[in-house]
Amino acid sequence: MSDTPLINLQELQLAARNHALPLEALRWDVTPIGLHYLLTHFDIPEVDASSWRLEIGGLVEAPLSLSLDDLRARSAVEAVVTMECAGNGRVHLEPHVVSQPWLLEAVGTARWRGVSVAELLDEAGVRDGATDVLLTGLDRGVEGDEEQAYERSLPVETLMEGHALLAYEMNGVALPPQHGFPLRLVVPGWYGMTSVKWLARLTLRDEPFDGYQMSHSYRVRQEEHEAGDPITRIAPRSLLVPPGIPEFLTRSRVVEPGPCELVGRAWSGAAEIVEVDVSVDGGATWAGAELGPAALGRWAWRSWFFEWDAQPGEYELCCRARDAAGNEQPLRPSWNLGGYVNNAVQRVAVTVSA
Amino acid sequence: MSDTPLINLQELQLAARNHALPLEALRWDVTPIGLHYLLTHFDIPEVDASSWRLEIGGLVEAPLSLSLDDLRARSAVEAVVTMECAGNGRVHLEPHVVSQPWLLEAVGTARWRGVSVAELLDEAGVRDGATDVLLTGLDRGVEGDEEQAYERSLPVETLMEGHALLAYEMNGVALPPQHGFPLRLVVPGWYGMTSVKWLARLTLRDEPFDGYQMSHSYRVRQEEHEAGDPITRIAPRSLLVPPGIPEFLTRSRVVEPGPCELVGRAWSGAAEIVEVDVSVDGGATWAGAELGPAALGRWAWRSWFFEWDAQPGEYELCCRARDAAGNEQPLRPSWNLGGYVNNAVQRVAVTVSA
Repeated sequence: MSDTPLINLQELQLAARNHALPLEALRWDVTPIGLHYLLTHFDIPEVDASSWRLEIGGLVEAPLSLSLDDLRARSAVEAVVTMECAGNGRVHLEPHVVSQPWLLEAVGTARWRGVSVAELLDEAGVRDGATDVLLTGLDRGVEGDEEQAYERSLPVETLMEGHALLAYEMNGVALPPQHGFPLRLVVPGWYGMTSVKWLARLTLRDEPFDGYQMSHSYRVRQEEHEAGDPITRIAPRSLLVPPGIPEFLTRSRVVEPGPCELVGRAWSGAAEIVEVDVSVDGGATWAGAELGPAALGRWAWRSWFFEWDAQPGEYELCCRARDAAGNEQPLRPSWNLGGYVNNAVQRVAVTVSA
Repeated sequence: MSDTPLINLQELQLAARNHALPLEALRWDVTPIGLHYLLTHFDIPEVDASSWRLEIGGLVEAPLSLSLDDLRARSAVEAVVTMECAGNGRVHLEPHVVSQPWLLEAVGTARWRGVSVAELLDEAGVRDGATDVLLTGLDRGVEGDEEQAYERSLPVETLMEGHALLAYEMNGVALPPQHGFPLRLVVPGWYGMTSVKWLARLTLRDEPFDGYQMSHSYRVRQEEHEAGDPITRIAPRSLLVPPGIPEFLTRSRVVEPGPCELVGRAWSGAAEIVEVDVSVDGGATWAGAELGPAALGRWAWRSWFFEWDAQPGEYELCCRARDAAGNEQPLRPSWNLGGYVNNAVQRVAVTVSA
């Protein structure tokens, strides 16, 4: 690893505010609060839950204005969901992309509880011609020279499929401020930018929203003038818990010789994970890992295990996931302007001591 | 702010794992879990609470081996404590110091609940000649080429003063893994390196421990060969919530013209805060802020308020705390080899719009 400075102070400010999952926390099925990744575009807003309302309007039969108690009084749904930032892996791209400098740890899994978006939309009555739902958060700031609330739209049909929820609880407690208190959207299988936090409004429309977070951010493109492709579902990725013990500064790993169980997680938004392969020689040779039970449901990461007979020497551990739709992690990153969706395989250097 | 790269990949790895407090979270008296700062020297260990024991031994009359239930059965103490990393402010030092690259946000306040260390030591019976207590954590790694558990010692008298506690709860819930589950030390008023997490053992000794985290880390020195001065209590600091709204990448702030209440927090480990001054012109002129009530107790930060009549233009907001012992924040940093205890005043650039 190079000692050359790569990150400027602006990027460091983002890296400090926005929290990554320490990789050893992959051990937990459900990520403890405080270890789940966190990206806040602007500031975490302070919301008075007693006066807060969720407004549902636009192309609906009966606009709704709901308090937190109103939402809690409705039938609840729960889902364990793995969420990942679309910018995860950005720092591994060359040339360097200046933005939130994620390495590989912008991920986490939570047990969300709330109300079904489909049920609420049914209650409001989606009018003919309504094709999209604009989701508006209470967080405000400036991006691309535009003052804006954080807001994005989704097709009505994506929200009506029945998996998306408006969550007021995370891991059995009230939604923490940083995860969207009092209410956030959770769209299983989609990158995190979709799951709008600190929700204020759902507005039914007859076309997609074209604001900054839709038309500029979160698109895969090679050049500024291109429209590019919108980012939607999470590409497959696997990560392993670095084995052994770390050196404080370099995070280099030392492993005792002998049997060593490598453990990790794999996930994909497009289809379920069907295979994880492991390499201990930097990708020259691969062997299949054992998948754990799919006990957390379709939208959560899958555990995997690999028995490694660790003999003294230097190794580069890699893991690679494949989903049922045939999507597989690439060995090397492919660059794009915003530094999105880099799901190239993880590489962990370890020394097995003599 | 310069766009020149300053941080290398090793430092970024640390910045990603170790979490800072987003400054808007200064608004809460008690920091929500997940927003409190976090520094993990090695890895967060996985601890089986059912087999875990706290061992108290060495120069004691009656060694103790206590389960978590044993500790919970004892009389409980509670304290609201502001904790700060000794390396907070490191990135603002020149020449650059390579380590965890903290800006100014390595701080947080929690309500800790547990047992009094003094009571436990009384129960074990401190033998004549015992001067120090070695506190050993379950986290292991390599630092300065030495494999080690994270461990540090404290004078017996510091622990017998009655304020230090062994905490099994944080903000009313079981200690989260990343904050030291199942048990951690909390020493109010001292920098965070003292409050050893994932405690395994307290060992009474007849001299201070001289391991790596005592003799090398956490000392203020100018050169490698010096012994330097050990770091102990928290130097005074104040921080303000950046007003207005941020730009995503640069974090530059835009404020509406008119009355603007600046709010912040101030704390000191040596003595209570008696004064906070605010400058809107980069430190050229200062005016006193109003201190909030000391309702959280001696060991927590104090809120403060300052009414600013924001007129269109460019400003540099600063705040400076002074404690009852006469300690005051300096206007400029003073450098040391490890990059510790830089409590120079915060500077926040804001634009008041026309």
